[in-house]
Amino acid sequence: MRYHKVPDETVRRLPIYLRGLMFLSEKNLKGISSRDLADLVGVNPWQIRKDFSYFGEFGTPGVGYNVEKLAKETKRILKLDVVRKAALVGVGNLGLAVLAYTGFRIYGFNITAAFDNNPKKIGKKIGSIIIEDISNLQVLKKRKINLAIIAVPQDAAQQTADALVKADVKGILNFSPCCVMVHKKVKVIPIDMAMDLARLPYYMPAS
Amino acid sequence: MRYHKVPDETVRRLPIYLRGLMFLSEKNLKGISSRDLADLVGVNPWQIRKDFSYFGEFGTPGVGYNVEKLAKETKRILKLDVVRKAALVGVGNLGLAVLAYTGFRIYGFNITAAFDNNPKKIGKKIGSIIIEDISNLQVLKKRKINLAIIAVPQDAAQQTADALVKADVKGILNFSPCCVMVHKKVKVIPIDMAMDLARLPYYMPAS
Repeated sequence: MRYHKVPDETVRRLPIYLRGLMFLSEKNLKGISSRDLADLVGVNPWQIRKDFSYFGEFGTPGVGYNVEKLAKETKRILKLDVVRKAALVGVGNLGLAVLAYTGFRIYGFNITAAFDNNPKKIGKKIGSIIIEDISNLQVLKKRKINLAIIAVPQDAAQQTADALVKADVKGILNFSPCCVMVHKKVKVIPIDMAMDLARLPYYMPAS
Repeated sequence: MRYHKVPDETVRRLPIYLRGLMFLSEKNLKGISSRDLADLVGVNPWQIRKDFSYFGEFGTPGVGYNVEKLAKETKRILKLDVVRKAALVGVGNLGLAVLAYTGFRIYGFNITAAFDNNPKKIGKKIGSIIIEDISNLQVLKKRKINLAIIAVPQDAAQQTADALVKADVKGILNFSPCCVMVHKKVKVIPIDMAMDLARLPYYMPAS
């Protein structure tokens, strides 16, 4: 089920709430008010209530949210309630960092394939993954992997995205510091490391 | 000047607007409506107008924004109108990717120091930077570097943050997949690569 008229900003915040809820669940906390959840995740309480209201009624006024239930519902809304296979394209420094990153599993992602164009890397094993030739991206279709992470150099990003779309990939996380253009049916989320750094000076005292 | 009562979410969006404005400026575009800017950056036009309204009046009703002027003002608001030195702590795969990343310069950041605890890495030169011993983080104070990027393994993140705070660092970009606790006068922005991936399935058709 795809909900309509939900702002992208709401969808962006849902994983933030989910991470907070999973943290609380680990600590065996049963219930939480929107105010306390707000403090934990750094979003206004009214914003949290509004964001969840797009998807139904989850809290009890004056009581708050059931942590376990809300985490489960949030996973369902985000379609994270199944384990999803993802592919990595580009096994340079950033790609290796992505493969080593433990955070993906928390959300049910399993990186099961990696591709590079460097003959010295192709065939090498990283953990349980053998690096494959980037010219074979079409195997993703057969393996039903429809999520991919682009970590190739900037000038190869667009052709990589094109090849992924041809292989029926429907969602792309793009670490390349450039925009890629794809059919609007494919969702691309750009990651710009510098943009997050760009928020920091605002909060810093004059030096 | 620090503006009061500006939501963190607004501050988070300003670099997104700035990147769009710099893109338009490169294309020699002089003016743009909030609607067209909205299309470019993927944020609602009313949200853009509201976000800028916290800082003054920048647009002309019915005409729109002066691209050059708004980019300059946004840089000033974000305190990005000076070149800022930053330090990298942790020169593993992710750290190397950060050093190679060209995007930081766009916002006026210059990574001028890098630290690691691996004796094999200390003394090595990456580009124009010589990797220093992580036990010498206090040199940041003397060099007036008050921004740092943490790219160390998870179990070393907190002690790294503590050492950075001791060295008078005021802003930290944390790539480590864990929370670090610091004095509230120090701003920490966490980067969770998985959280961005967690938004993707929502937009994808049922598979």
